[in-house]
Amino acid sequence: MDIATLRASHSDHWQLAGAIRALAMDAVQAANSGHPGMPMGMADVATVLFQNHLKFDASAPNWADRDRFILSAGHGSMLIYALLHLTGYSDMTLEEIKNFRQWGAKTAGHPEYGHAQGIETTTGPLGQGISNAVGFAMAEESLRARFGAKVVNHKTWVIAGDGCLMEGISQEAIGLAGMQKLSNLIVLWDNNNISIDGRISMSDITDQHKRFEASGWKVIACDGHNPTDIDRALTEAKKSDRPVLVDCKTIIGFGAPNKQDSAGAHGSPLGEAEIKLTREVYGWTHEAFVIPAEIKAKWEAIGARGAAERAAWEERFATLPGGKQAEFTRQMALEAPKKLAGAVKALKKELAEKLPKVATRKASEMALAAINPVMPETIGGSADLSGSNLTKTADLGVFNADNRKGRYVHFGIREHGMAAAMNGMILHGGVRAYGGTFMCFTDYARGAMRLSALMGVPSVYVMTHDSIGLGEDGPTHQPVEHLAICRATPNTLVFRPADAVETLEAWEIALTEKSRPSVLALSRQNLPTLRKTFTAKNLTAQGAYILAEGSARPKAILMATGSEVEIAMKAREILEAEGIPTRVVSVPSMELFAAQPEAYRKKVLPAGPVRVAVEAAARMPWDRFLLGERGSEKKAAFVGMESFGASAPAEVLYEKFGITAENIANKVRAML
Amino acid sequence: MDIATLRASHSDHWQLAGAIRALAMDAVQAANSGHPGMPMGMADVATVLFQNHLKFDASAPNWADRDRFILSAGHGSMLIYALLHLTGYSDMTLEEIKNFRQWGAKTAGHPEYGHAQGIETTTGPLGQGISNAVGFAMAEESLRARFGAKVVNHKTWVIAGDGCLMEGISQEAIGLAGMQKLSNLIVLWDNNNISIDGRISMSDITDQHKRFEASGWKVIACDGHNPTDIDRALTEAKKSDRPVLVDCKTIIGFGAPNKQDSAGAHGSPLGEAEIKLTREVYGWTHEAFVIPAEIKAKWEAIGARGAAERAAWEERFATLPGGKQAEFTRQMALEAPKKLAGAVKALKKELAEKLPKVATRKASEMALAAINPVMPETIGGSADLSGSNLTKTADLGVFNADNRKGRYVHFGIREHGMAAAMNGMILHGGVRAYGGTFMCFTDYARGAMRLSALMGVPSVYVMTHDSIGLGEDGPTHQPVEHLAICRATPNTLVFRPADAVETLEAWEIALTEKSRPSVLALSRQNLPTLRKTFTAKNLTAQGAYILAEGSARPKAILMATGSEVEIAMKAREILEAEGIPTRVVSVPSMELFAAQPEAYRKKVLPAGPVRVAVEAAARMPWDRFLLGERGSEKKAAFVGMESFGASAPAEVLYEKFGITAENIANKVRAML
Repeated sequence: MDIATLRASHSDHWQLAGAIRALAMDAVQAANSGHPGMPMGMADVATVLFQNHLKFDASAPNWADRDRFILSAGHGSMLIYALLHLTGYSDMTLEEIKNFRQWGAKTAGHPEYGHAQGIETTTGPLGQGISNAVGFAMAEESLRARFGAKVVNHKTWVIAGDGCLMEGISQEAIGLAGMQKLSNLIVLWDNNNISIDGRISMSDITDQHKRFEASGWKVIACDGHNPTDIDRALTEAKKSDRPVLVDCKTIIGFGAPNKQDSAGAHGSPLGEAEIKLTREVYGWTHEAFVIPAEIKAKWEAIGARGAAERAAWEERFATLPGGKQAEFTRQMALEAPKKLAGAVKALKKELAEKLPKVATRKASEMALAAINPVMPETIGGSADLSGSNLTKTADLGVFNADNRKGRYVHFGIREHGMAAAMNGMILHGGVRAYGGTFMCFTDYARGAMRLSALMGVPSVYVMTHDSIGLGEDGPTHQPVEHLAICRATPNTLVFRPADAVETLEAWEIALTEKSRPSVLALSRQNLPTLRKTFTAKNLTAQGAYILAEGSARPKAILMATGSEVEIAMKAREILEAEGIPTRVVSVPSMELFAAQPEAYRKKVLPAGPVRVAVEAAARMPWDRFLLGERGSEKKAAFVGMESFGASAPAEVLYEKFGITAENIANKVRAML
Repeated sequence: MDIATLRASHSDHWQLAGAIRALAMDAVQAANSGHPGMPMGMADVATVLFQNHLKFDASAPNWADRDRFILSAGHGSMLIYALLHLTGYSDMTLEEIKNFRQWGAKTAGHPEYGHAQGIETTTGPLGQGISNAVGFAMAEESLRARFGAKVVNHKTWVIAGDGCLMEGISQEAIGLAGMQKLSNLIVLWDNNNISIDGRISMSDITDQHKRFEASGWKVIACDGHNPTDIDRALTEAKKSDRPVLVDCKTIIGFGAPNKQDSAGAHGSPLGEAEIKLTREVYGWTHEAFVIPAEIKAKWEAIGARGAAERAAWEERFATLPGGKQAEFTRQMALEAPKKLAGAVKALKKELAEKLPKVATRKASEMALAAINPVMPETIGGSADLSGSNLTKTADLGVFNADNRKGRYVHFGIREHGMAAAMNGMILHGGVRAYGGTFMCFTDYARGAMRLSALMGVPSVYVMTHDSIGLGEDGPTHQPVEHLAICRATPNTLVFRPADAVETLEAWEIALTEKSRPSVLALSRQNLPTLRKTFTAKNLTAQGAYILAEGSARPKAILMATGSEVEIAMKAREILEAEGIPTRVVSVPSMELFAAQPEAYRKKVLPAGPVRVAVEAAARMPWDRFLLGERGSEKKAAFVGMESFGASAPAEVLYEKFGITAENIANKVRAML
């Protein structure tokens, strides 16, 4: 629909959408950076969505049964900021809009989770939002099955652009959602035919209808500038028994006379002159950042339109049995259940008695078998390596369209989509998501793992086959730099437990953590239980601790993680036999150790003794503890990997790469 | 086709395919690890491909105009090893087959590029092979356009499984290939309906025909166990004017009575008992690893069948003008042209005269503008950020179906697919590929970037917007840990040039390098030229060097990279004014510096002075040079990032995160 017709035939709508468009133009211009074209292009669709379809109440942004709105095309952030401001979210003031992209503002360049109410997830890295959304929709299905449709019955709406749809992660999301038949998921495709480099046809000729249909989606098309047609499409979308793509044909920078329908409208301010001309085209006579009171009032009425529905929901919620209410609230708040500590303690005692020799991936399964029954909010899964990652415990059942009470997801060979869906599930609330793949394939999931950290979402990454210790699969599957990668990422907890006890302790931390993701690096190969004495205290929470003390004041300190702690212990035996008092420090988590008080760190790593760090991985993260923390270059050595691995049985590889007790002992001898 | 019919009606074929199947079963069993089911399932397709279609000559594995065969489903490595052995590749001996997955063998768990002739690329991480293949096919098109169809006219064949097709990267590859109308690309889909977790329907319901057609591919189906039908399909595929998916309906572990058509045949040895039963089903009476001479002879005849065609090709090649022959040979060998040094020198002189104040991304464009005209084998591109990455120079032209002489690729919003295609182009030979995105989105390309390093492929990653210096786009777009990630990856050169001169020097190194990828981390913001004096010598090749010496024996050494070198220089001014002699060391590449002789490193970083490292990124890689290399904890400090970034103008961010000359000076003062 062209602007003249639209203005004439839908004048109320035009004013509402115009407020979005004006704020987007003005804020981007004031910041002198940003993306005006997308909000201008999708203003009509967003207006119809918020006015007639989205279930929300601006006065209660955390209402558990609200529809979720996700701006996957995060560069168009002014669209959501404008919507939140106009509908009356209390923290999205006009001042914030005016401070778009400035220090301390809630209105970052891309929508940041936690900055303002109504931002359900951080978007900007393309394809993440649509993939988060699959997790949101799965969480909703899970909660509905567990708590009933009276209290959980909402949709997840996504706005995605061509950028999102070209990213590979979107295919993983589309495939997963299609297989899962997520009828509560509706993606509004901003089909404007423009990307940063120009016309989409320069880089893609994909028929998106056919592509989505191929994965079991329903596709509906509409004129993204015709409110009646948009409304028809959204009405139809809500009735689908499958996930829906609504193809919204739009014009980027709609109405800007010299820039619309071109890449020029995408990622830069329109410029004062073009804004002036566009205002004329719009018939929008108000000054920059001025929204007339009557238009603001109409928008606020839209923001309040869900209040009655929310009140009704609260009444329904109050009819739930008290225990169920408390449980719902607990799970939505990501509070660990009271029973968790007891379950952990019981298994810990059992481990101290039985001293199992198992791979830490197996230990992880044992931990989960104890935890999952007392933590009904866990949803686990694997990117098609269930039997290797050992992420499925007996009680879970498979989550799919036939069994929404299932708690195990066959994510398929989709590491990136899995990680993003895990983020989405946790952001939705009510779910603690964990998922497994091989440690090496954190590479495939990096984009989403970084967002777990940036958003502070406590996703748990169960990364097995964590070193050359996986053996014959060879260097493509053997992580070397991946511990460094995870440890270099801010706000991320990385665990590499040495035995079954540390593995259990790591799980306890990961599942009580509320604002950091955890990466569990787990062995393929069997490892002895080294923590032979039960302690109620979670020693892994200290990050590093003295596992074995020297027979006298230590002359050497061996630091190690995971499968290499056993080797360090053997080196200790050799050295002690030679009269060299040797301490072994297990370092399950560098981040947690670095956060300990200096007195504790000094106790564990005093100045004086020579230090050897042992880890079948890159040295980079270790210099901090070898050379820093009172260490020195002449009294420090590293035993680990300097290159990629190789294909051979694990024991051969350890020998060939020199990660042996004898080599550790040699390093100590050479320094003493 | 069932086995009885197949044996009866195609006995010759059955014997040939049986040799593959037997070797696969036997080698996996002997190694006690590996994936027998896929080679057993795809043996019929592979036999028909090698017997009737693939253009190759086992005695000349590097024949430039051979068809390329890529086993994207790399876990089925015994398929390619068996084929190479049977057809007579001289280095793939029976001994190697028997040593499958053992230390030092050419027969690694997954096919490793460089281990044996005929392995065109390393596969195993799923989806990489099919995505490399797109690059192979693009390189072929480019070379055909440049050197003529008389000498370049071949196909790229890929075997891909459901794992490859579920990975998001495959969608990027499919989309790129479809848009590029790569009719020389044929993907054989091992459609066996099984993944590790079980039936594909547990995780995916995608109609692959529809999906590929949606992106402009031709789809042909065949019975993957009927040689006649396979032959028909491959014959048809070769005639297509678009990329082709051949849907080969197969049974995993074909013929193993208790394990076929199940996940049990996928990733473990069949076991002696099942192998015995399978041999009976096959009517294969030979002992383990025994291939009867007549069958081997037939296979060797297949391996030799391309000899005449190769000889004819060599005759045609000899008719090319001498200069063109030499140029073809040079480009295929990745030898830099003689003119490169002169072009670099000329621009370097110009830079020393003009001292431009430009972003290093702009300096990179200037370097490319000088280099591209003298290096016709470069093919550049960007993942839809051409105007930001500045990777397109005036002379390139756009590579697409209408212009195969074009040298610039609009890769679309497909970082992972771009990186994998770059690897493929270079592996094909005749092309030096570089591609750009934002540094932060190395996250999306990690899988392929690691493979560049593992294979030793000199892809060049032009990663602009390399720090919080990009400003308002905010933390989702601001790299913090990414320099550490790239530096922790073995066999990778990471450059963070400080000015236009270092940028040019980095390009010179990257484009003459033959066995390592390069990552160029480039600024968005303008930077002054700090290297004001022309040197013929490439100082960046030393990794680090004294950019500014102290006015006397230095009491402080400031190390910095990229945009922070300017800040370190300002700090030096402050300190010198206070009478503290201060040296500034620019560190464009840590890897190259670490590889310098100790005497040089000691000269640059002597013991004694306090050290401050300055980089708007994570500290992790710096401890080596701050605390190591004669440094010590009490005389070392870091000025950089400890958290994610934020959205605000760049100068505000530098101030807020304390990356300022004053803060550097404070650190020095505090330590002196």
